[in-house]
Amino acid sequence: MEIAHITNSFAISLWFADGTNYPGQDNIRARQDRLHEALAETYAAMGPEVSMLLEYKLYEPSFYTMDVPDWGTSLLQCLALGEKAKVLVDTGHHALATNIEFLVAMLLRAGKLGGFHFNSRFYGDDDLMVGAADPYQLFRIMFEIVDVDAVTPEGGVAFMLDQCHNIEPKVQAEIRSVLNVQEATAKALLVDREELATLQRAGDVLGANALFQDAFFTDVRPMLAEMRTEMGLDPDPIAAYRRSGYQQKIETERVGGTAAGWGA
Amino acid sequence: MEIAHITNSFAISLWFADGTNYPGQDNIRARQDRLHEALAETYAAMGPEVSMLLEYKLYEPSFYTMDVPDWGTSLLQCLALGEKAKVLVDTGHHALATNIEFLVAMLLRAGKLGGFHFNSRFYGDDDLMVGAADPYQLFRIMFEIVDVDAVTPEGGVAFMLDQCHNIEPKVQAEIRSVLNVQEATAKALLVDREELATLQRAGDVLGANALFQDAFFTDVRPMLAEMRTEMGLDPDPIAAYRRSGYQQKIETERVGGTAAGWGA
Amino acid sequence: MEIAHITNSFAISLWFADGTNYPGQDNIRARQDRLHEALAETYAAMGPEVSMLLEYKLYEPSFYTMDVPDWGTSLLQCLALGEKAKVLVDTGHHALATNIEFLVAMLLRAGKLGGFHFNSRFYGDDDLMVGAADPYQLFRIMFEIVDVDAVTPEGGVAFMLDQCHNIEPKVQAEIRSVLNVQEATAKALLVDREELATLQRAGDVLGANALFQDAFFTDVRPMLAEMRTEMGLDPDPIAAYRRSGYQQKIETERVGGTAAGWGA
Amino acid sequence: MEIAHITNSFAISLWFADGTNYPGQDNIRARQDRLHEALAETYAAMGPEVSMLLEYKLYEPSFYTMDVPDWGTSLLQCLALGEKAKVLVDTGHHALATNIEFLVAMLLRAGKLGGFHFNSRFYGDDDLMVGAADPYQLFRIMFEIVDVDAVTPEGGVAFMLDQCHNIEPKVQAEIRSVLNVQEATAKALLVDREELATLQRAGDVLGANALFQDAFFTDVRPMLAEMRTEMGLDPDPIAAYRRSGYQQKIETERVGGTAAGWGA
Repeated sequence: MEIAHITNSFAISLWFADGTNYPGQDNIRARQDRLHEALAETYAAMGPEVSMLLEYKLYEPSFYTMDVPDWGTSLLQCLALGEKAKVLVDTGHHALATNIEFLVAMLLRAGKLGGFHFNSRFYGDDDLMVGAADPYQLFRIMFEIVDVDAVTPEGGVAFMLDQCHNIEPKVQAEIRSVLNVQEATAKALLVDREELATLQRAGDVLGANALFQDAFFTDVRPMLAEMRTEMGLDPDPIAAYRRSGYQQKIETERVGGTAAGWGA
Repeated sequence: MEIAHITNSFAISLWFADGTNYPGQDNIRARQDRLHEALAETYAAMGPEVSMLLEYKLYEPSFYTMDVPDWGTSLLQCLALGEKAKVLVDTGHHALATNIEFLVAMLLRAGKLGGFHFNSRFYGDDDLMVGAADPYQLFRIMFEIVDVDAVTPEGGVAFMLDQCHNIEPKVQAEIRSVLNVQEATAKALLVDREELATLQRAGDVLGANALFQDAFFTDVRPMLAEMRTEMGLDPDPIAAYRRSGYQQKIETERVGGTAAGWGA
Repeated sequence: MEIAHITNSFAISLWFADGTNYPGQDNIRARQDRLHEALAETYAAMGPEVSMLLEYKLYEPSFYTMDVPDWGTSLLQCLALGEKAKVLVDTGHHALATNIEFLVAMLLRAGKLGGFHFNSRFYGDDDLMVGAADPYQLFRIMFEIVDVDAVTPEGGVAFMLDQCHNIEPKVQAEIRSVLNVQEATAKALLVDREELATLQRAGDVLGANALFQDAFFTDVRPMLAEMRTEMGLDPDPIAAYRRSGYQQKIETERVGGTAAGWGA
Repeated sequence: MEIAHITNSFAISLWFADGTNYPGQDNIRARQDRLHEALAETYAAMGPEVSMLLEYKLYEPSFYTMDVPDWGTSLLQCLALGEKAKVLVDTGHHALATNIEFLVAMLLRAGKLGGFHFNSRFYGDDDLMVGAADPYQLFRIMFEIVDVDAVTPEGGVAFMLDQCHNIEPKVQAEIRSVLNVQEATAKALLVDREELATLQRAGDVLGANALFQDAFFTDVRPMLAEMRTEMGLDPDPIAAYRRSGYQQKIETERVGGTAAGWGA
């Protein structure tokens, strides 16, 4: 909290690796009590401008119970703390077949969506570039954000990337993630919400779905390129980055350094 | 509610098939608002002795969004209603890899576990006999119930079977389910909770897990048979049922009847 | 086989609901032996022009073992029969997180892909409109087909729809499925395979992925509408169907009929 | 192969981390061709007594395609090599809801089961102690092995542990795994296979399942303890290990050493 104060942070984001690997290893409820105690102490030390974002993750590194494995558990802990405690959604931290946009809508409706760690995955917590695995899902998530007008900073939702670069150049991969979120948001903004509501009320399943899907299938890239040009930016951020020489510069400078790792 | 009043029911148990099949088909948040309205009206009409149990299910028959797909959503709706609204856990209604005993512990800790629909499954909502797919999981669930002394009717948790008999004789299969719950409960009661707590506090992972697993691997069937004999019951309920001739009786009586089905 | 002969069918497509619900219920290997016997007899009765397509499904209606639950099992049965026996892929019949385009590629490489039952799903075997749940996955599957030039009837792959209409008008939903397959195929054809191979050989992960994804994000709908116009067809098949009055005609004609169902 | 020759190994066990992270990154079929080439060269260099075991894994460390993600792919590669190439099953490397004993039975029937990497998991590839997550599944797997009398070394199936110790003492955890496999095997041997076959042929679903489950619920630990005593061994291997002082000895000796890690 001291560091948050010094850096004028508007939020502290908490993720706990804690949990158990084997049935019987610890008392599930007692661990929640201890977690609440620790969070309450931290919460009390937060300034009035600061939010606490409590992330959840289904498994890994703990393999039987994570102390905060799902949004329900995070929600219960946040409700016990107060208004400034909110749930942080990492898009890769769910059971397979979880409908992420649905729980995002639930949290928005309850005023408890604190923010996102964006990334994508095919299997576990793969931490691939955002939108790389299922761009239609990203569009559906952004639609829920757009639908409550929470896409701007005033919306109170913190948007963060949380990706891991094993085989691809890091900075370019992050630019790609930002572009993918931008395109998904532009597509979500294309949905005519009044027309959609009319079709929904009429029970026109195919009509409403077609209107929704039409927005997704629209190619927004030319429009976004034009917008960038109007703003005095390069219309193609990845090409601009490649031309900039920055990648070569850092690769040259960092020769001989020591890579950071997870322990060891 | 009128029927509940006439029958002196202590709980009404609600499960909603409602939801959507396609993205865009309906407004996710607006559906929650309408659900809340309907539940609030029902809740207001409930007598002081009656609880409302709100069941959740991940999918089916709706294939994109269920209105109450998970315990988090059920919890939010229950919290908005009041103390007498609680979550109903159907053991077959979760995403794969969901830790059911964990969420049971969360709901018990929050005073929001209303009851169970017990069954078992390997894949989707298979509705097999309780304990048929993963008896160790059933034991772990019953341990959480035992750990808060909620296994008796006074514990406030409603235990129900919700199984579907496609290929096996119905009554025998239900007796088997009851026996499996009984055996899992007996094993859970065998765990020395003081000794377990000591090992847990000492951080003895293998010791605590071994104590827990030892109870599961103990054969409680002879003990339960003896207990039945002491109570003047047949020690082997399935054999007793088979000898009773009841199955032959109902099969003879019901020849020529019309089977009930799901519609059509 | 007699009916196939009379109707000049080029393929018989087999799916078996058979299996078991409970461990121990039957001998897993013996069931395969009996399945092989039955298939071998049928195979021997097939004319030289006919293929046997053997479909697999992970679960449902059997809930512990399906006799043919996955492509490996179907492949083993087909290999034991001969060249004219091939695997049928239903896109909704896999474990979650299965990479469908990967196994399609494996079957194509082995000369054992018989065809598809196309549909889409978010959870189980939801049988939604093709491409409705994950259009990017459909594109990736069609890319593998295009990559071996098997998209035409001469390619030897049978393309079928297998969807179930619970809430949406049936014919329109099938037109939508056909359009979605058509669009995914057009996008797959847009991928410059030579350029892609160059980027792949160069180990340019982001470049190869971007080229691939660019094709997916291209809006092929105007081009396909133009193509239909050139062929003398209506550019918008769904609008054309709606204008045709066919839906009203069949709804009027079929008033009073009896809906078909699954039994009962 | 040179090392295998020097060490008189009867099998070489291969697992490949190779694959891709992003769609389009590489040609799926071409990778199989290259894999085949490499394996064929190795296979040709193998002595007549040596088997090649080809392991599969659904995902991780590659997050879009693994080159050998499932038993079907491993089988195809092994079939292209010859009789001495067989599939290696790691019990933690499957999609959720995969019926492992079923595919074990398929591989046994095809003469293609090379061996096991035993471990257990609740979620991904958790590498917990064998039998720690689902002891009933371990019993069902061992039943298939017992059912073809392949439990002895002459059976041609290589049994290996592949577990990872994050929080528990390593040697004790391995002893526990061995005990769990031993107990599951003893239970599988208890199943009266003639009686089971009779019930199966009679279509007695509940009877066959009960016979099967009865063996699992039998407490074989006293019998195994007695057997060890008869063999001149300690009846309780974990207690014997604890008493031996070996753990203290290695902990003392290895103070100040450097832990091995994954890279860095």
